[in-house]
Amino acid sequence: MVFKMSFQKEKKDFLIKKDKSRKGCIDRRIMKLVNKINSLDDFFTTSSCSGRMLSFSIPKSNKKNEVQYLLSSHKKIRFNEIKSTLKMLKSEKVKNDVWFRMSGAILHVASNNLDSAIKLLNAARDVGFRRSGIISLGKNRVTMELVSTENIEAIVSKKGRLVISEDYLGVLIKEGNVKLEKTWKKIDKLCESLNKMK
Amino acid sequence: MVFKMSFQKEKKDFLIKKDKSRKGCIDRRIMKLVNKINSLDDFFTTSSCSGRMLSFSIPKSNKKNEVQYLLSSHKKIRFNEIKSTLKMLKSEKVKNDVWFRMSGAILHVASNNLDSAIKLLNAARDVGFRRSGIISLGKNRVTMELVSTENIEAIVSKKGRLVISEDYLGVLIKEGNVKLEKTWKKIDKLCESLNKMK
Repeated sequence: MVFKMSFQKEKKDFLIKKDKSRKGCIDRRIMKLVNKINSLDDFFTTSSCSGRMLSFSIPKSNKKNEVQYLLSSHKKIRFNEIKSTLKMLKSEKVKNDVWFRMSGAILHVASNNLDSAIKLLNAARDVGFRRSGIISLGKNRVTMELVSTENIEAIVSKKGRLVISEDYLGVLIKEGNVKLEKTWKKIDKLCESLNKMK
Repeated sequence: MVFKMSFQKEKKDFLIKKDKSRKGCIDRRIMKLVNKINSLDDFFTTSSCSGRMLSFSIPKSNKKNEVQYLLSSHKKIRFNEIKSTLKMLKSEKVKNDVWFRMSGAILHVASNNLDSAIKLLNAARDVGFRRSGIISLGKNRVTMELVSTENIEAIVSKKGRLVISEDYLGVLIKEGNVKLEKTWKKIDKLCESLNKMK
């Protein structure tokens, strides 16, 4: 009972905290799923992303806080929306390697017991969050990482020089848009699946 | 005690079974780590890959067994080794989308108890297998997936037409070679880390 109480307090405290993500709020496309999970006594979400497209330069130090973002979008993109990114790339000002990345949805979820954690994990894997697992076991909680598999990771610029054509950047964005749709469908499926469970 | 006995029997039975992977044997670069894990009473590996580069076409059905492999290598590649792959791509015979992929090392490991599983999980995450977790809890065993984060995923050909230049394919391969080296270092680090633990 003490265990349960302490989890509910942790949950309450966590959910009223300020959002510390770079974006500062929950992505619209994953809001319903996050709310659903948080409506269940046994869980709360500690972070979420509905999938995104990024273009970023990797500093030689490899330090995360020195990464420079040239593009970041949780929505589908049209080619003419990335003209400024292209201009930046062509200016040869960014000397570090630049990559284009599309990542599928990802959530971190805390649970107060292993059985519930495994149920959510199985539900997530079944709808296509295939890279999901329990990543830590604490005194009060089990933490899961639910990861959908949509992915693109392509180098764009090397030592200040573009290594792809504008056309190919367009292709990457189109493929990224398709994969965003796929990941959003999985988010909705997981939400439906949880609705059926309770 | 019964639990322990049954795990040891499962382990023995599993490890003498025929290797069912497409390659049919354990990758050289991960052999030492696999042997180290299997030398510990609490664990056995159920699959492993030391990282690889692939080029494959995705069938419209999306069925895994209909995927066509144009290239598959667990070793570093030189550009002149992929001439036949390029020829195939240029022939416009492959009508489905073709992607180039580099994936980091991945292992599946069974354990007979949660504490040991968490220890291995933490050791793996600490050396850079950042996408690792417990993926199932059975009656006799906990199963973990240990995944290293090196990754490239780039579309190469669309509806039978190349969408990248030969030069760019060369760049992808070079980057893939660098990432293979990185993943091999992590494999060695995990092995060292386990040696220190016991």
